[in-house]
Amino acid sequence: MYTKPLADLIESFQKLPGIGPKSAQRLALHVLKMPQSEVDRFVDSVLEAKRTIHYCSICYNMSEHDPCEICSSEKRDRSLICVVAETKDLLAIEKTNEYSGLYHVLQGLISPMDGIGAEDIRIKELLIRAASDNVKEVILALPPSIEGETTSLYINKLLSTFSIKVTRIAFGLPVGADIEYADEITLIRALEGRREL
Amino acid sequence: MYTKPLADLIESFQKLPGIGPKSAQRLALHVLKMPQSEVDRFVDSVLEAKRTIHYCSICYNMSEHDPCEICSSEKRDRSLICVVAETKDLLAIEKTNEYSGLYHVLQGLISPMDGIGAEDIRIKELLIRAASDNVKEVILALPPSIEGETTSLYINKLLSTFSIKVTRIAFGLPVGADIEYADEITLIRALEGRREL
Repeated sequence: MYTKPLADLIESFQKLPGIGPKSAQRLALHVLKMPQSEVDRFVDSVLEAKRTIHYCSICYNMSEHDPCEICSSEKRDRSLICVVAETKDLLAIEKTNEYSGLYHVLQGLISPMDGIGAEDIRIKELLIRAASDNVKEVILALPPSIEGETTSLYINKLLSTFSIKVTRIAFGLPVGADIEYADEITLIRALEGRREL
Repeated sequence: MYTKPLADLIESFQKLPGIGPKSAQRLALHVLKMPQSEVDRFVDSVLEAKRTIHYCSICYNMSEHDPCEICSSEKRDRSLICVVAETKDLLAIEKTNEYSGLYHVLQGLISPMDGIGAEDIRIKELLIRAASDNVKEVILALPPSIEGETTSLYINKLLSTFSIKVTRIAFGLPVGADIEYADEITLIRALEGRREL
């Protein structure tokens, strides 16, 4: 029904995460209505980002520079490594402006169901950093999912042979949430994580 | 906080309709994780669609061909023109496989609030078609918004000087909807549009 290049464009958009058939059509038609100069700018920003941004060879954050801005910053506390699954998690933590240590982006989580083992993500590189650098604490900021649990436990076990403190971010009720509407797992985590006042 | 080319890429995605800051970041990071070959394919599909698809000079549908597949089809009823605001509306009607007439895509609606007048959309071109071709009926399939109403009334007035039947698609309760949850305007339209059994 769609003319061929339009069908191809819709399919391209639909391959992106969170874009269904309706959104893909809307985006494709929008692109066709955009002036050529804007389309060129869009395409250039895609190619330019892809050309210039690579993984940091230390922490596997994405950056134009290697080492990345965080790894090469003089202001960061090098005794602290926060382990996250994806770059987006690093970006979320950076937005708080409260964390001044380094990061390690695993680029995934252990997931036997999806055939992703420990060797498929950047765990080995984390161990090398923990062994060689002057690291005092590794903070695991992995999601409270089965994969996040598995990966946290695995890393904790490997790091237990080092004299490094391994901590995990707290799970519990989000600020502003109603206890009434919290799911059971979150409530269980909130109770488990209770602290003396 | 973002490295420059990433910030640019996020901004590019955020300019697209329905893409907020969170989605834009997710799409940008996904693009950076895509293999170069896939990124190239994505970019090519954008440029190729933009290069080959243009407005049909008769109905202003988007097509590789001019006249478009619909205008040049032998199978379509040339006495019938369905007027829509945007290409997406044409696509939605084509999906029903129930309409066999021609179309006219206005490329917008009259909207004094946005400074869009009758001369900014393809109304003149519709009149020329209605005057010269053997058109018996014009079906207005414009949305039930203020802009849709205004545009429908305007076109109806202009066409009233021609010996052409002007109809409008029905508005009412969508099939499967609960009367209880329908908004008032839809209910009013449904009552107004009642038909004898």
